[in-house]
Amino acid sequence: MNSGELKYPGSRRIYVPGRLHPEIRVAMRRVEPEETIFPDGRTEKNEPVNIYDVSGPWGDESFHGDEKDGLPPLRREWILGRGDVTAVEKDGCPVLRRAGDTPPTQRYYARQGIITPEMEYVAIRENLGREEAFRAVYDRFPSAKSRPGEAQAFLDGLGSGMPRPSELEARPEFGPQSLVKRAQLSCQNLPANGVSPMWITPELVRGEIAAGRALIPSNINHPECEPMAIGRRFFVKVNANIGNSALSSSIEEEVEKLRWAIHWGADTVMDLSTGRGIHRTREWILRNSPVPIGTVPVYQSLEKAGGKVENLTWEVFRETLIEQAEQGVDYVTLHAGLLRRFIPYTVGRMTGIVSRGGSIMAKWCMLNDRENFLYTHWDEVCAILAAYDVGVSIGDGMRPGSIADANDFAQFAELEVQGELTRRAWEADVQVMNEGPGHVPMHLIRENMEKQRDWCMDAPFYTLGPLATDIAPGYDHITGALGGALIALHGCSMLCYVTCKEHLGLPDKDDVREGVVTYKLAAHAADIAKGHPGAQVRDNALSKARFEFRWEDQFNLSLDPSRARAFHDQTLPHARAKKAHFCSMCGPDFCAMKLSQEIRESGTGGAPPSDPA
Amino acid sequence: MNSGELKYPGSRRIYVPGRLHPEIRVAMRRVEPEETIFPDGRTEKNEPVNIYDVSGPWGDESFHGDEKDGLPPLRREWILGRGDVTAVEKDGCPVLRRAGDTPPTQRYYARQGIITPEMEYVAIRENLGREEAFRAVYDRFPSAKSRPGEAQAFLDGLGSGMPRPSELEARPEFGPQSLVKRAQLSCQNLPANGVSPMWITPELVRGEIAAGRALIPSNINHPECEPMAIGRRFFVKVNANIGNSALSSSIEEEVEKLRWAIHWGADTVMDLSTGRGIHRTREWILRNSPVPIGTVPVYQSLEKAGGKVENLTWEVFRETLIEQAEQGVDYVTLHAGLLRRFIPYTVGRMTGIVSRGGSIMAKWCMLNDRENFLYTHWDEVCAILAAYDVGVSIGDGMRPGSIADANDFAQFAELEVQGELTRRAWEADVQVMNEGPGHVPMHLIRENMEKQRDWCMDAPFYTLGPLATDIAPGYDHITGALGGALIALHGCSMLCYVTCKEHLGLPDKDDVREGVVTYKLAAHAADIAKGHPGAQVRDNALSKARFEFRWEDQFNLSLDPSRARAFHDQTLPHARAKKAHFCSMCGPDFCAMKLSQEIRESGTGGAPPSDPA
Repeated sequence: MNSGELKYPGSRRIYVPGRLHPEIRVAMRRVEPEETIFPDGRTEKNEPVNIYDVSGPWGDESFHGDEKDGLPPLRREWILGRGDVTAVEKDGCPVLRRAGDTPPTQRYYARQGIITPEMEYVAIRENLGREEAFRAVYDRFPSAKSRPGEAQAFLDGLGSGMPRPSELEARPEFGPQSLVKRAQLSCQNLPANGVSPMWITPELVRGEIAAGRALIPSNINHPECEPMAIGRRFFVKVNANIGNSALSSSIEEEVEKLRWAIHWGADTVMDLSTGRGIHRTREWILRNSPVPIGTVPVYQSLEKAGGKVENLTWEVFRETLIEQAEQGVDYVTLHAGLLRRFIPYTVGRMTGIVSRGGSIMAKWCMLNDRENFLYTHWDEVCAILAAYDVGVSIGDGMRPGSIADANDFAQFAELEVQGELTRRAWEADVQVMNEGPGHVPMHLIRENMEKQRDWCMDAPFYTLGPLATDIAPGYDHITGALGGALIALHGCSMLCYVTCKEHLGLPDKDDVREGVVTYKLAAHAADIAKGHPGAQVRDNALSKARFEFRWEDQFNLSLDPSRARAFHDQTLPHARAKKAHFCSMCGPDFCAMKLSQEIRESGTGGAPPSDPA
Repeated sequence: MNSGELKYPGSRRIYVPGRLHPEIRVAMRRVEPEETIFPDGRTEKNEPVNIYDVSGPWGDESFHGDEKDGLPPLRREWILGRGDVTAVEKDGCPVLRRAGDTPPTQRYYARQGIITPEMEYVAIRENLGREEAFRAVYDRFPSAKSRPGEAQAFLDGLGSGMPRPSELEARPEFGPQSLVKRAQLSCQNLPANGVSPMWITPELVRGEIAAGRALIPSNINHPECEPMAIGRRFFVKVNANIGNSALSSSIEEEVEKLRWAIHWGADTVMDLSTGRGIHRTREWILRNSPVPIGTVPVYQSLEKAGGKVENLTWEVFRETLIEQAEQGVDYVTLHAGLLRRFIPYTVGRMTGIVSRGGSIMAKWCMLNDRENFLYTHWDEVCAILAAYDVGVSIGDGMRPGSIADANDFAQFAELEVQGELTRRAWEADVQVMNEGPGHVPMHLIRENMEKQRDWCMDAPFYTLGPLATDIAPGYDHITGALGGALIALHGCSMLCYVTCKEHLGLPDKDDVREGVVTYKLAAHAADIAKGHPGAQVRDNALSKARFEFRWEDQFNLSLDPSRARAFHDQTLPHARAKKAHFCSMCGPDFCAMKLSQEIRESGTGGAPPSDPA
């Protein structure tokens, strides 16, 4: 890989230390904007912006490791330090597993009231490393900052009964400079949808894990993984799928796919490889991945069964699950809620069963005339998962494959069983999330989230899309991001990306980039809407740069700086255009930003509003 | 232009005649899917799907007109037949204008109880030309069709109190084959969000126009325009902007931009040209456009004032407005709600005033220390518009240019004035819509729609985006489509596209295509969610084709068939792959669709559900 491709311009890696656990160093990316230069020559410093960064050591300019050596085992000492695991020899490699009576899972520690290094790492990461990030929202409006109670009291009085602007203006206390108006301007985007703006403390993280409302996928055999949380109180996460192809087999190629996906921001990666070399490929990925790796173990089980569902057995599956747990897989998708008696309900559907794992399990039930072995062996499954702190993502094998099938009986019947399985997994101290659809029209999306929260007791929801229409093959990254943003706004914790090749073929490198960035965009839109305290800082910094024609900062603060810059270059390639106080869209005579700056500079803002002529 | 580029494969132009006005022939595009072939050799016919088509004569294979001749004047006889216009000579061309006491506007006729040919045309178009389109939704479930009342009664009992699947299953009447379940499956996607599934009749169209809840932009001097409606009860519409560039000056080039935008589905086109040749360019566009053309007349007025805001006068503006009305512009954006006293409220904003027209008017107010001349001359403006049936799109000059500025006092103060101007325009029988933001985070989008409906008395809303985050330059077509889908779900009637070059540069041909298709996708997702009776037919037909591996039909029914096909070709280029009963994504062994078809074919669907083992 051309390593230059994997650098973000105008930013650098920083590390933020822990307090409870001083050995922690949380990686972030920092953009330091230029200063603002006013027309009168006065300057103003712009605060640096810290950006959530999942690229791990690969994103650190000073790291020169090689794919063959893998990444440093960041969490090794933390894991061993808890004294509840034992190393066993497996094919010549040491493998960790549960040693005693208690499971080495983050859920177990959280329920004991223990804040692990992983939990503090997550808190620092979600806070973007500094109190200043939150203060920045208030900084433009000092009055609101000093009297937040008053501002809030005003806001509480708003809503559908808000007076019209003309009524407000008639009130003498409500001039343009008044506190309430400034407070309204500065605070309005903060409180929303049940997630109030507040610090994410290590204790908050612990509480969310203990309650099952979040998980930190962190297999004890994947010490290279940097802790991250999936849960409604945290940034909405994005998963990208990768899979080997029959012809590609070098470690460099497989790791390149991983690095590419996380460079663009994939918070977790699912390895959906099939075919030969599945174990070896996964090993390469795990040893080089700073993000959690998920799998669908039934795929490899089916390979071992010679590709024949009729040869698939619980024993083959069990062996595969242990193999993957020992290797370090952080979470596994298990289609255990797809019960045999639900299968007939899919026959009248527009698109039957579209989940690959789901259709394998359905076929197994029918061929054997028996209940789903994942369901009947669930407690044994959970005991295995708990021994390595493998999270479970309870699959939705009956997710709708078309909007006509959305929210139907088969789908919701499985969801209810997902709730039962969630409770039982929690009893074994396994960390859990639930998978969700799929194809769902916008007006039915909320019901999915509500039922999942209700029936699965607020366990994190992890959806594939949902795609809000079926008619856009070639644009399904957008269709899915649209539904994804909406369900994330309602509380979905992680979105599985789809690429523009969904339904059509295999994504190439550009498709992966476009898919990940599109989903990061959707996740970020939801983060703002649900009031994640760190979300809007970046928007504000970028918009301020835009208004002030700081083009380089605008590029550097964006989700895809190289694309933003390339698009600008297409119209105005000259270097001096990056300093121009207008852009190619309207030109200098028609530039609204420029006109608006003139208005600001004229000082009219200080005058009291005058009567209309 | 390579005319092959502007053909949709696998479909043909049809015309549906009127009933009230038999001379009407409403153009549509029809896709005729292949028949389904079952494994036992049995076949099943698939109903043709009619698709809303805005390409006009350019989309008719039998039309061989030339840009220099312009399109046939479809509406000429309808306009003249109403006997309320007179032709005057203007620069050697005949120009129509109001003749007597009553304005020749669709709003006037609607309020008289008259169903014009334009209104019937819209009804047929919105119905996609046939009753069968709606019946198709029910066809899979004959029992629901024959007893819709029962199905509805069941659905009415659903909602948050819906019994869990396990409770439903325990009820003996609730087997998988029972009426209620089938009804639930078939009907659930129909009723939603206040727009109930029903015919769109010519009388319904008339009623919506009369009430001001919709408009049919249709200047009496643009007889080439095919009638279309913008309003909440109808398909969500998409506008694309085009503008001349200083160097481009041939009629072919300008018309090519128009044809390209409407080929991909732009329902209206705004000509935002500036610079020299503005009148001539607009003439070429109007004479060749089957879709309504909108403009922002203050741009040309400013050109006439030598580009200097200080030289802009009401008289120059008035002359320009009449010039454009006489030429045939169907709707004009006027920033009349931006009042002088609101300007100080923008000074504390993150991004001030970002509307070009808005900043021109604001600067004019400040330079002249007078109220906005569009506001003070509003009744005169409306008299001009009414004389030609030019619709007015009341601009939002203070729309937020960053999410930090969303829903602030300046924005809503202008919105309230838009309401006052709407009422006054209606009194002059002018057709009206209101423009809206801009940059708005998802949780504040609904408030925009609610306030607009409340304060502007349900006049159609026409928004630019809204963009749900600021951090995605290079992907702002997606950011805007995401917010656009959400506001359309809440009742927005038309979305102005933004391209991926927004904030960065000028869109090229591919950007326009991607932008229009992305917004069509968003509009369609909202059409389904709000229950437009014709919307889901296409999704169902495409999903059925997908499930049955009818690849060609899947491409042909999609929003962008050539891209869908090209993506499939990238992985599986061979012609026989278009017949394959699996695809490149999972291969034959892992194909969920294939497995699901096997389940269906095994006939398990007929058996009663059995107890779990």
